[in-house]
Amino acid sequence: MERILEGDPRSVARAISMVEDGADGLAELSAGLFPHTGRAWTIGLTGAPGVGKSTLAAALVRAARARGRSVAVLAIDPTSPFTGGALLGDRVRMQVHATDPGVFIRSMATRGHLGGMALAAPEAIRILDASGKDVIIVETVGVGQAEVDVAAATDTTVVVVAPGWGDAVQVAKAGILEIADVFVVNKADREGADQAVRDLEQMLRLGPEPWWRVPVVATAAAEGTGVDELWVTAESHREALRSSGRLERGRRERLLREVEALTIEELRSRVRRWLDDDPGLAGDLTDRRIDPYRAAALLGERAIRG
Amino acid sequence: MERILEGDPRSVARAISMVEDGADGLAELSAGLFPHTGRAWTIGLTGAPGVGKSTLAAALVRAARARGRSVAVLAIDPTSPFTGGALLGDRVRMQVHATDPGVFIRSMATRGHLGGMALAAPEAIRILDASGKDVIIVETVGVGQAEVDVAAATDTTVVVVAPGWGDAVQVAKAGILEIADVFVVNKADREGADQAVRDLEQMLRLGPEPWWRVPVVATAAAEGTGVDELWVTAESHREALRSSGRLERGRRERLLREVEALTIEELRSRVRRWLDDDPGLAGDLTDRRIDPYRAAALLGERAIRG
Repeated sequence: MERILEGDPRSVARAISMVEDGADGLAELSAGLFPHTGRAWTIGLTGAPGVGKSTLAAALVRAARARGRSVAVLAIDPTSPFTGGALLGDRVRMQVHATDPGVFIRSMATRGHLGGMALAAPEAIRILDASGKDVIIVETVGVGQAEVDVAAATDTTVVVVAPGWGDAVQVAKAGILEIADVFVVNKADREGADQAVRDLEQMLRLGPEPWWRVPVVATAAAEGTGVDELWVTAESHREALRSSGRLERGRRERLLREVEALTIEELRSRVRRWLDDDPGLAGDLTDRRIDPYRAAALLGERAIRG
Repeated sequence: MERILEGDPRSVARAISMVEDGADGLAELSAGLFPHTGRAWTIGLTGAPGVGKSTLAAALVRAARARGRSVAVLAIDPTSPFTGGALLGDRVRMQVHATDPGVFIRSMATRGHLGGMALAAPEAIRILDASGKDVIIVETVGVGQAEVDVAAATDTTVVVVAPGWGDAVQVAKAGILEIADVFVVNKADREGADQAVRDLEQMLRLGPEPWWRVPVVATAAAEGTGVDELWVTAESHREALRSSGRLERGRRERLLREVEALTIEELRSRVRRWLDDDPGLAGDLTDRRIDPYRAAALLGERAIRG
């Protein structure tokens, strides 16, 4: 644990492997690190495959380093069984930072972890936070609701689209308008980028006046264009969070939801044991003598009453 | 309820809307219908967008009707925020069956339902089962783990790929090899179809001898080619399930897991209330006096001890 607090990359990497595997001793480690967390600024980065999230993450790392901020990138691997692929190639682009002690890059799968990505991600983030990184970029590579939820569970959520990706209506349909604190139209050197920015801005003007007007930033991350503007925009969001009290409130709310999910995982294994050890109940179910709702109500009672 | 048991399409549609919304009275309705379930054969249909799942579903409906079997198609809407789109257009292709009382087609979203798709789907399936349909095809339109899980929670799971979709290695990576009872290479009139079939067959030969050798069927659903072979193959899987006792065992196991999930949802709302009503615990968490694991253990104890 001491070595994690000192920021030793190997110890940090080992701890994140423990999170991936749901290893024994994780709860103890996590409890030890917890008092040393809460300092890092977390940025979520999400968007459809092919919009250039990884290139953008690399560009943001450069922007952070140029300002003397240490930074970690946590790339959550897809769990979607129909995606996957270019992850390794994307990571290679990051190798320019391989010798910089102020940068830590890690992709993470979540196979062994109870509760999956939603519980593994905040734990991994706390490890990086405790290791002293100023900024933690959480890049989700998949496209499902779970990936979006993870990216949204950060201080500042950046949603990335590309001109070829689809029109603004698609974004509205997709329900990701709500989670974006900053929109990025990446690959802005391509045709249709200006239109995409205008469409998004118009859509964002619909609805009631929000406390924070979501900005749309055009970038061409591969060339570095617009990345400084994105960084400054994201920082202004963090400042708006802080000054309005929303930063603390949001973090508190996320902690409570995480504890809720951890509690549920604890109860789940207990309920499963009861069910598997009760052939009578299973028989009543398969013989249609008791319906699933009533069976669940009975088990719920048993969980509460002891 | 009587009208559902008689197979009245409007009553069935209304009941499925109740499932979508998580409406009051659902538990009661579900309990009433439960004794009348367990007769239908359920087929899951999953695969990446664009492989032709809906066209295949329509072709399977024709195959079922040609054999005098009544059939329902339940198309689970994507919850993936980055997909969506052509659903309505796909449904239109099914309109040829609109006047056939032996066919019921319905797409279902799951916004209001606690526990989401995983709990809504088996309920909707039971409604269709109780309404007297012989065959229920569950088509999942999205691409996430949740969609795959829903399609896998059927008697016979059909995984659809298309020649342009990717190579066999992609399928292995994706982890869907395990859930397939039957593989379909659809759009088999396209280049690369033979190769896709060979690749899949070769991959399926790896590993230990299974109880059921997963067949690969080539179809061109839009032209009806191969659909009869697919139907016969799927039926032979059902017979293999039945004669080996795996049909009953699988259904029993799925019922138990569903009751587990229902129980968890019941406990979740209780845990949430405790958390939200306990400002002390929230304060201890945000002030880092208690870590999430210990907070969860305390709440778990409280849930059990009452």
